[in-house]
Amino acid sequence: MPSNNRIVVIGGTACGPKAAARARRCDPSVKITIIEQRDNLSTATCGLPYYVGDVIKKESALVARQADYFREVMDMEVMTGTRAVTINRKAHSVEIIDQKTGAASTMEYDKLVIATGAVPAIPNWQGKDLKGIFTLSNIPDANAIRDYLSKLDRKEVIIVGAGLIGLEMAEAFYDRGLKVSVIEALGWPLPALLDEEIAAHVEKHLRSKGVTVHCGQRVTGFAGDNGGRVRKVSMGDTELEAGMVLLSLGVKPNISLAKEAGLTIGATGGLAVNERLQTSDPDIYAGGDCAEVENIITRKKTLVPLGSTANKHGRIIGTNITGGSETFPGIVGTAVAKVFKYNVARTGLNEAQAREAGYDIVTSLVPTFDHATYYPGAREIMVKLMANKADGRLLGGQAVGMGETAKRIDVLATALNFGATVNDLANLDLGYAPPYNSALDPLHNAANVIRNKMTRQARSLSPLEVKKKIDNGERFVLLDVRSPQEWNAEHIEARQVKLIPLPELRHRLDELSADEEIVVLCRTSIRAYQAQRILDGVGFKDVKFMDGSLAAWPYKVTTPT
Amino acid sequence: MPSNNRIVVIGGTACGPKAAARARRCDPSVKITIIEQRDNLSTATCGLPYYVGDVIKKESALVARQADYFREVMDMEVMTGTRAVTINRKAHSVEIIDQKTGAASTMEYDKLVIATGAVPAIPNWQGKDLKGIFTLSNIPDANAIRDYLSKLDRKEVIIVGAGLIGLEMAEAFYDRGLKVSVIEALGWPLPALLDEEIAAHVEKHLRSKGVTVHCGQRVTGFAGDNGGRVRKVSMGDTELEAGMVLLSLGVKPNISLAKEAGLTIGATGGLAVNERLQTSDPDIYAGGDCAEVENIITRKKTLVPLGSTANKHGRIIGTNITGGSETFPGIVGTAVAKVFKYNVARTGLNEAQAREAGYDIVTSLVPTFDHATYYPGAREIMVKLMANKADGRLLGGQAVGMGETAKRIDVLATALNFGATVNDLANLDLGYAPPYNSALDPLHNAANVIRNKMTRQARSLSPLEVKKKIDNGERFVLLDVRSPQEWNAEHIEARQVKLIPLPELRHRLDELSADEEIVVLCRTSIRAYQAQRILDGVGFKDVKFMDGSLAAWPYKVTTPT
Repeated sequence: MPSNNRIVVIGGTACGPKAAARARRCDPSVKITIIEQRDNLSTATCGLPYYVGDVIKKESALVARQADYFREVMDMEVMTGTRAVTINRKAHSVEIIDQKTGAASTMEYDKLVIATGAVPAIPNWQGKDLKGIFTLSNIPDANAIRDYLSKLDRKEVIIVGAGLIGLEMAEAFYDRGLKVSVIEALGWPLPALLDEEIAAHVEKHLRSKGVTVHCGQRVTGFAGDNGGRVRKVSMGDTELEAGMVLLSLGVKPNISLAKEAGLTIGATGGLAVNERLQTSDPDIYAGGDCAEVENIITRKKTLVPLGSTANKHGRIIGTNITGGSETFPGIVGTAVAKVFKYNVARTGLNEAQAREAGYDIVTSLVPTFDHATYYPGAREIMVKLMANKADGRLLGGQAVGMGETAKRIDVLATALNFGATVNDLANLDLGYAPPYNSALDPLHNAANVIRNKMTRQARSLSPLEVKKKIDNGERFVLLDVRSPQEWNAEHIEARQVKLIPLPELRHRLDELSADEEIVVLCRTSIRAYQAQRILDGVGFKDVKFMDGSLAAWPYKVTTPT
Repeated sequence: MPSNNRIVVIGGTACGPKAAARARRCDPSVKITIIEQRDNLSTATCGLPYYVGDVIKKESALVARQADYFREVMDMEVMTGTRAVTINRKAHSVEIIDQKTGAASTMEYDKLVIATGAVPAIPNWQGKDLKGIFTLSNIPDANAIRDYLSKLDRKEVIIVGAGLIGLEMAEAFYDRGLKVSVIEALGWPLPALLDEEIAAHVEKHLRSKGVTVHCGQRVTGFAGDNGGRVRKVSMGDTELEAGMVLLSLGVKPNISLAKEAGLTIGATGGLAVNERLQTSDPDIYAGGDCAEVENIITRKKTLVPLGSTANKHGRIIGTNITGGSETFPGIVGTAVAKVFKYNVARTGLNEAQAREAGYDIVTSLVPTFDHATYYPGAREIMVKLMANKADGRLLGGQAVGMGETAKRIDVLATALNFGATVNDLANLDLGYAPPYNSALDPLHNAANVIRNKMTRQARSLSPLEVKKKIDNGERFVLLDVRSPQEWNAEHIEARQVKLIPLPELRHRLDELSADEEIVVLCRTSIRAYQAQRILDGVGFKDVKFMDGSLAAWPYKVTTPT
């Protein structure tokens, strides 16, 4: 039996220090060493965009605990500015180098924790090493960007990659008075997280802030000036002027050490770990951004690098390396981000992920307000919910808008964790008081719409589908059942559109034909669904409503000039 | 077989109209009649305090749908100003009276829905019929209060009952410039919802707004002036001046009609219904405030009158009376309320309810911020979590403070719905970004504290228990491990208190005795728990920390003068 007296932790950002602190609280006598290549332990890397945007003024605000705290209070050795270069599994040791002096030494372990995080993914683009092209994943990166910004001689900043960091950084640069363009190779912003019909609203919001968004376009290279500073970003034949470029193309697990040591790497490219977060070597644990996690819905391994998961991993590892036993159940894929004034939140699978996992899906789209509209301050949000058509099991959801969305997504994430169905969701006992919610939460309504669709009582087309039908010049009636006042304020201009206000519908049935395809819309779909039911009831054969109606329509509307 | 063509709904506030609307959407041909004794259908009674407080200016804002909408769009008969006086089950008919003309008539039903709501509970106090003594449960009540306020000749308003409505009304009267006192017979505000240690902070907040709070005191009667207007409220030997009085002592189900018709009334005093919301007569359904609901945790019947439940009931009844089949799973006891600047939220059982249900409980108390403290605008909240000691099954929780609490309670409510344990809660994949949360949600931390207590790794006393020990002059050390700067800003004054800053603790062990009882505190308990583990590790025998530490201490502290 090996002793369990010496714990070595490689990596000091989130998972590492958490594992070390937990180990100390579980075992007062074990010897603990943290090895960190940079100067600080326990840094809040999720705060970096706000530090660049000057919302957070001081670097020190991003350091949760000073190294001295770990030394004095936690009674552990902290080696900052130190790099782990080799893991020798047979000898149970790690080769380390003091980055200032270059001195090498060997540190023995009984249990080793790999918490080496992730590194930015950077394609091998021409000119990628020009000055003024940055990535952002740690405090030195942020300081380099801040420095460069302070000397910037032009206002154009190009962000490559419209993921979470890319969009948070769009706001940061905007806050600093810069002219921001975002280039995204896929079809819409946050493509890994959101569906097009939701992302279209985020894109609209970005444009309303003056951010230029280039979706479906690929960067091919960069050009610089004589001083070696980036000046242009090429996308095939097109070029954009650039004073600075941020590459935010996601990250990949930092696994070189682990790989060289012969530890098993999963198909995702992350370190393979079991439920106890043990790697293929039982004396080596791994957690945080460098490790794979299991998706609770699909039961497949995936990579979801997030500080929240890293912290949970840290606690579990700290328990397990001191003789305890704790397991990590996996993730459901929750993410939330502030994108200017939009609160963007999602959890579970999106449509592409659900289809890839083999589900036949049913969705709902509910534009609504975040609390009772009669109480001041209610703000709009849009909630999309998705379930498995066969049994109503929830698969995921998205919520965006100026109003509160994180709460709804956290509730949905919790429901997903327990394999909930739309029936479960529709009857959850959620808090209701006018300043916080409506009597029925947006999730209740979204679940009810899906339930109505599952019984075929409700039938719909998405705004994207309706747009396509209009653009294709298809023959159908797009029946707007709002009031003439609402119509005058804004409406969709198309030859298929017809206005019959809902209260008049029962008396004006002769203006419609029972056999034609009718798609009803109103402002949010509530009246449109009602109209569908009225028309169904009098024997109309092919009536649907447009999901989310005008509030969910991201395209042009006609307004009074 | 009786026909199913005629549906009669008694009660038009929330459950009734919802049931009717759902029935119409499920069946276009059925004949539907709603009977409502007052003038409006579909009223937002939860908005009444804000209407009295003039936050909502117009009565019309509280009417979600006009009666004409139900007539024209929903194709149903709506009889407002009409009272149902007798249900004749044998004849399947309801006797009704037009309240304006006094004309009686009979209405036949195939399915009947009883959605008669609740009525205020009013003890038979002397003087209770004086002018200026009100209850608040509908729009006419609110208008009567507004009228009386507009002519009020003194500023003192007394609220009897510190429940949800009572405290919402305290704010409403305060907003109108009145001097507010609240009298509560039980020991603390919101006694049916919160535990004392949480309610003490709500009480402190009320006092900080100038509201006088009299807890543990019973009203004995009222005295008026020559004009018959209330002038005094008596509590035994004490009297309070009063220009107006609001009685907010809760409500009781309005079941007289149902009782006379011989329908089964449950032990709670509410109408007994099955999962499908059928009463003891299969052709009569009931929902909303007049019906019992099952508590999902205890599996016991209870009364929880809330608009959210009433709306869910309405949909289920609407489905079932038109040939569908839907069931209501029950409630977990979620409630949320704005009390001045405090966001008060709770779900599940409180300590008294848990003990009554026979649980041996373990709790945690976590004062924290509602999002990452390095991101601007983080506000304090306090989260209390409770689990069953034997297996860690969650039982309930409470969260109060200036920061976001409703989200956490909705997540907990969802977890409770699925019988989650603290282990489940600790690993939920909740949304994390600095503007919305910390890497670990307050619920994660609260769950982890309970897990530490279940393994006896963490041991604590509540602030209430510590206060009692100090007041009793018990011999123990109350060890404050904060910095001298923090100590100077505020500290507990007691002869048992001793300051040893945490970073010095390991070097100053000789100032403590390994055998004495030590209770450690800091600001939020994080350092205090760390200190407990350090002292445990060096062989101290009886060390605990104070739950929530100074942030959870509702009593006097010494501050610089």
